[in-house]
Amino acid sequence: MHIRISRDELYSGVGPIQAVVETKRSLPILSHLLLEASSNRLSVFGTDLDVGVRKRLDGEVLKEGSIALSARKLYEIIRELPAATVELNVDADLTATITCGKSEFRMKGLPRDDFPSMRESKEGGILLERRLFRDMIRRTVFAVSSDQTRYTLNGILFRVTQKDAKMVATDGHRLAITTHDGDLLKDRKPVEAIIPRKAATEALKLLKEEPGEVEIEAGENHLLLSSDNTLIDARLIEGQFPNYEQVIPTMATKQVTIDRDALLAGLRRTSTIIGERTIPTTMEFKPGQLLLSCVNLDLGEARERLDVEYQQEEMTVGFNARYILDFLSVVEAGQVTMHLQDALSPALFRAKDDKRYTCVIMPMRI
Amino acid sequence: MHIRISRDELYSGVGPIQAVVETKRSLPILSHLLLEASSNRLSVFGTDLDVGVRKRLDGEVLKEGSIALSARKLYEIIRELPAATVELNVDADLTATITCGKSEFRMKGLPRDDFPSMRESKEGGILLERRLFRDMIRRTVFAVSSDQTRYTLNGILFRVTQKDAKMVATDGHRLAITTHDGDLLKDRKPVEAIIPRKAATEALKLLKEEPGEVEIEAGENHLLLSSDNTLIDARLIEGQFPNYEQVIPTMATKQVTIDRDALLAGLRRTSTIIGERTIPTTMEFKPGQLLLSCVNLDLGEARERLDVEYQQEEMTVGFNARYILDFLSVVEAGQVTMHLQDALSPALFRAKDDKRYTCVIMPMRI
Repeated sequence: MHIRISRDELYSGVGPIQAVVETKRSLPILSHLLLEASSNRLSVFGTDLDVGVRKRLDGEVLKEGSIALSARKLYEIIRELPAATVELNVDADLTATITCGKSEFRMKGLPRDDFPSMRESKEGGILLERRLFRDMIRRTVFAVSSDQTRYTLNGILFRVTQKDAKMVATDGHRLAITTHDGDLLKDRKPVEAIIPRKAATEALKLLKEEPGEVEIEAGENHLLLSSDNTLIDARLIEGQFPNYEQVIPTMATKQVTIDRDALLAGLRRTSTIIGERTIPTTMEFKPGQLLLSCVNLDLGEARERLDVEYQQEEMTVGFNARYILDFLSVVEAGQVTMHLQDALSPALFRAKDDKRYTCVIMPMRI
Repeated sequence: MHIRISRDELYSGVGPIQAVVETKRSLPILSHLLLEASSNRLSVFGTDLDVGVRKRLDGEVLKEGSIALSARKLYEIIRELPAATVELNVDADLTATITCGKSEFRMKGLPRDDFPSMRESKEGGILLERRLFRDMIRRTVFAVSSDQTRYTLNGILFRVTQKDAKMVATDGHRLAITTHDGDLLKDRKPVEAIIPRKAATEALKLLKEEPGEVEIEAGENHLLLSSDNTLIDARLIEGQFPNYEQVIPTMATKQVTIDRDALLAGLRRTSTIIGERTIPTTMEFKPGQLLLSCVNLDLGEARERLDVEYQQEEMTVGFNARYILDFLSVVEAGQVTMHLQDALSPALFRAKDDKRYTCVIMPMRI
């Protein structure tokens, strides 16, 4: 194998992929990146067996071939190289020589046979606007459960039908659901997949925010995401996602409209008094006013007064403020609405006049 | 106690001081900040018993008094407050009420009697340009030893005589010494103090880079640094700093001049191949050329070729590259010089044509 490639192009591939690779794995090959050169492309591939990522980079291939090199070391070397042409030459002994300007490195590699294989796209998948796909992840991933005993909740449900695409995540205390209306299937099979948290967060990092599309192909246990020169291969969570629709309240009789920034700042302030323990934040609704308060017996108390649009009877509900902050931090709207029934029923949070994104949050007893 | 103060002024005091305070100390009072209001000044004081810091802030004192409040909580609250006037009111029960806009916080405090006292400046000290004092610390602090058994090396020697001011630090493998010529004493007593690393790094953070002076008063076991509204009280390391002058080589017969940026970049690159262990970097001097190389039996090797000004006989020396990188990172000059004797004698590093700052680095066997 022998290639010439610009340092910046190489860095754009090795940088993001080495971040996926786990260096502390017991299997040494998994701390490596597989480099493969063929037909003027260098492909860089890394995997932790749950998430695999491959990028195809432009370069001049003088001799085809492949080698697996330490991800961490390769990354550290390329990061320090000047913006010039890098030459990578692998001898029959699997020793790679990297030269760039007046610098030269020699590293021992491993053969490609030892490397796990990457799935390839078979029949092509559905197409979704990349920024929309990213937004759907951002709006749900925080609600993914960390409870290992509730395995099917450790990911985001991604469901595409004839009429819409949905992502849903819940940890039993709150649920986030976002919907995109429109037929994405166009003769493809419907998708129903639970994407693990790591795959979802890696996709957020790897898929650029720029306009463009992502192609999504769901296999039996795997999801392939491809976009530009990047292919992500995510092992899916097997099992049945719970029936979430029954959790979404339909009886909410009270509605409040609140300035998003004011609620965010107010909750951040009252939350400063919360220590390590989970203490409820009390929301006291009065006509035209919302009083936030938080009492920590060890530290003290915090109060905040907000002007809100509310004209119904007074009511008091307690929440885990962090759940509301998570919702507010991914909403861009200037105003948000809360739909409430009583102090024990789940509350529904939305951006004002937008039913495509909903957070359901269970109250806390106060 | 009852004061009014702008949020930004209060934040400028509480922010840097809470960073000095250790929250995990066994003595609960040390995780607090002491606030004292008198004659239209609010003084904020925090200490970990080794380093104490006090700032005097401008505010409107409605009622004099004092209280000790949790450093962490106070900081978190003030950080989230809007840029408006903060009112702090302490009742007889030592409960502090902080109000700002529509926010209100109540925190229980501790009495000032429980708080360690801060030394006050007695007769005034010597005056040094603040940026110069900061530079002297920056140029030496990295060489301070972390070896707890060599207690007197755990700080920077600060010595002021009739003719100059010096800072010196060494860990036995390298030594950094910086000198400022000029009479700073002006009838004051000479200074000889070993400033612990933490006090030195806190001084770097707390003393602004802007022009101005710092007043330095050395007591028996303490050093007081005052600058603008900030007073730092550092407990000094007791004992005798070793005689460092004998370490500085005087026999160096060979001299090399190297571009600072090129050497920095070259060593950063060859250092990528160094793993967890300490591996020497070989410097091979030839007429007009310097070859850097590093061999890690587990990972591979790195080589770098630099053009240098050198016309003497060929020689090869090994160094811990990190020590040279530490030196280069605090030198602003475009070119640096190395003065060498042989492969076993200490080498001397300087900015070209500048004898006021010297690093002496012991070679490593290769």
